[in-house]
Amino acid sequence: MKQGELKTMQPSSRLTTESGSPRSSPGEVETAVFHPPVPFRLQSGATLSKPAIAYETYGDLNAERTNAVLICHALSGDAHAAGYYHGEGKPGWWDRMIGPGRAFDTDRYFIICSNVLGGCKGSSGPSSTNPQTGKPYGLSFPLVTIADMVNAQKMLIDFLGIRTLLAVAGGSMGGMQVLQWGVSFPDAVEALISIATAARHSALQIALNEVGRQAVMSDPDWKEGDYYGRKPPGRGLALARMVGHITYLSEKSMEKKFGRVRRRKEDGRGFTEEFEVEGYLKFKGDSFVKRFDANSYLYLTRAIDYFDLSADRSLAEIFKVLSRHRLLAIAFSSDWLYPPVQVKEIVRAAKVNGADVTYCEISSDYGHDAFLTETVEQSRIISRFLEVTFNRMKNATKRD
Amino acid sequence: MKQGELKTMQPSSRLTTESGSPRSSPGEVETAVFHPPVPFRLQSGATLSKPAIAYETYGDLNAERTNAVLICHALSGDAHAAGYYHGEGKPGWWDRMIGPGRAFDTDRYFIICSNVLGGCKGSSGPSSTNPQTGKPYGLSFPLVTIADMVNAQKMLIDFLGIRTLLAVAGGSMGGMQVLQWGVSFPDAVEALISIATAARHSALQIALNEVGRQAVMSDPDWKEGDYYGRKPPGRGLALARMVGHITYLSEKSMEKKFGRVRRRKEDGRGFTEEFEVEGYLKFKGDSFVKRFDANSYLYLTRAIDYFDLSADRSLAEIFKVLSRHRLLAIAFSSDWLYPPVQVKEIVRAAKVNGADVTYCEISSDYGHDAFLTETVEQSRIISRFLEVTFNRMKNATKRD
Repeated sequence: MKQGELKTMQPSSRLTTESGSPRSSPGEVETAVFHPPVPFRLQSGATLSKPAIAYETYGDLNAERTNAVLICHALSGDAHAAGYYHGEGKPGWWDRMIGPGRAFDTDRYFIICSNVLGGCKGSSGPSSTNPQTGKPYGLSFPLVTIADMVNAQKMLIDFLGIRTLLAVAGGSMGGMQVLQWGVSFPDAVEALISIATAARHSALQIALNEVGRQAVMSDPDWKEGDYYGRKPPGRGLALARMVGHITYLSEKSMEKKFGRVRRRKEDGRGFTEEFEVEGYLKFKGDSFVKRFDANSYLYLTRAIDYFDLSADRSLAEIFKVLSRHRLLAIAFSSDWLYPPVQVKEIVRAAKVNGADVTYCEISSDYGHDAFLTETVEQSRIISRFLEVTFNRMKNATKRD
Repeated sequence: MKQGELKTMQPSSRLTTESGSPRSSPGEVETAVFHPPVPFRLQSGATLSKPAIAYETYGDLNAERTNAVLICHALSGDAHAAGYYHGEGKPGWWDRMIGPGRAFDTDRYFIICSNVLGGCKGSSGPSSTNPQTGKPYGLSFPLVTIADMVNAQKMLIDFLGIRTLLAVAGGSMGGMQVLQWGVSFPDAVEALISIATAARHSALQIALNEVGRQAVMSDPDWKEGDYYGRKPPGRGLALARMVGHITYLSEKSMEKKFGRVRRRKEDGRGFTEEFEVEGYLKFKGDSFVKRFDANSYLYLTRAIDYFDLSADRSLAEIFKVLSRHRLLAIAFSSDWLYPPVQVKEIVRAAKVNGADVTYCEISSDYGHDAFLTETVEQSRIISRFLEVTFNRMKNATKRD
């Protein structure tokens, strides 16, 4: 990963999507790192003297710089939204949505995705080295908010020479960043695509995150966050992820996928995983530990819990800045973590301000995970939405 | 607690319920312990040589021994369903439902409640002393099923000289025992009152229990269950209870009770509880640890997960034995742990067999907890149901 490098590789593979049409992944990609030239001031008042922002881009920025789309990732995501790293078989987390001919069509748009501040995949976070001490920050890393993440993204966008984003898009925590973009930088974005998200975290949502945090902090290996170079709090983080995974699925999809199927024929003697669903959760928990930092889990879930666009005023008041924007809000019928009712609140508040709002509730059994798995219907909706936005933006520019 | 003692104290206090009518608690009570004279054989084939069954009774058994009602408790309950222990201010867990003039009217019925096998409140469980070794069983205690719990209750009922129970009643895990009573001993019970329960645990329900078990077993103080006389796995058990409490409440009741209210004005610096809902969960978790055994938590949640009345045949087939029974099935509109749809499955399967079934869905915001808190409406429904059952039983006896 090189400083400020803006690199997009040519597609190396042609894939076929579920719909059968030949569409492709962005192919081989690399992650770059942007180091803002000035210290970064956080909402809390704290300052990061040498922040890093890891990012990837796919497709090309047009001459007018009007075709840039920012993708915001969810809690466990990263800058690697699409394509393949050299020699690796697993594509980025939203690869089915990004590439030539795909929803975020790299033949038409310039796609950017950066790792959030507080994360652990190249951007500054608690596992980063504190330049003052030469050691990992741990809990001395300042608290981060969704607005801080968005401010960091704005610095990156400025660095890339983009004045106005065609759209900002994301699901879950990514959807929160999308809404924050609209509120923080209404003049720097044309359209918002917020998926399976909420404008404020509810008591239930806070409670679920808190269980995850307590799981991490109850692990004796956590050591007040000072575990770098030692055994990380893997048991606690795996537990947190297990709770998370339960909330990502719907009751129906769990029943379909696992039901009461057992891993062995005879009843177990002890308390090892016996039902398939137990094995699945254990696998998901254990594999998460290998790729995620426990402190980042604390920081990011806290940022999500703090998120409340309507803390001071009503959401309708806050969304006054969105009067000339286009908003696409997508919800999934069986999502009980960010249920359609919360997405509809966003839609209502934007509508009363005259924003051009499209609400789509996709019927799916996949629960919250649907924003990652129901890519066929999402692709249709998003590609059309982007196309209309792009054409309007072009026409408006011509008129100017 | 004395061997086989059958003691009911006179009411010592008169209380007033929410509806204003003078009804009362059973007053001061004591727990007795029954030691079956023969070893107890479990479903797994294992045997408990000297089992203990802790129980309480309220009211008097009539001369015909036809007015006995068995109450079955939920995961964290015990034999102390009603009344007060000497010198203690807190009544039993279903006190508002049991007593003179209450739903389970001790002026008319003889109420029995026993601690389940595998529990930690006087009945044999993993924290009991293994007579073979003189040490606590720990994980050498055999696995227990809902059917085992019911078989132990049947021994107690036989010991008390009761041939036929007027009714068996309970919510959550208690409701599973109710259904199992009907299936295991259809001739020993007239009516079943199953509340907020399921005839089989679903993948989601297993998953939620598994998180709790993993939380306990991830705690280094658990030591493969061999922690008696040492520090118990309190952090793990508290975590398990936190997850539990989230599932006991509804999203609406959580939002009403806590919303996003903070415990302090300024944003927290670290990751201590900051939102009210976090403090609530921490309190609930920590207080549970003081009164419950972590190994019992493993055994009882496992028994619940194993529960599946329709494992071999359809529920309708299994419920053929209930053709002459009365069944009252209660569900709560906002219960997402045991949602109304699962209670309706029970109702359908009993109905097709000609059982006299009443289904009541009580509209409540209290989620699963409603079976403990919505006592006014439950009381009306249950007292009428018991009265009709009792009168029919009397008339049938006269005709015989």
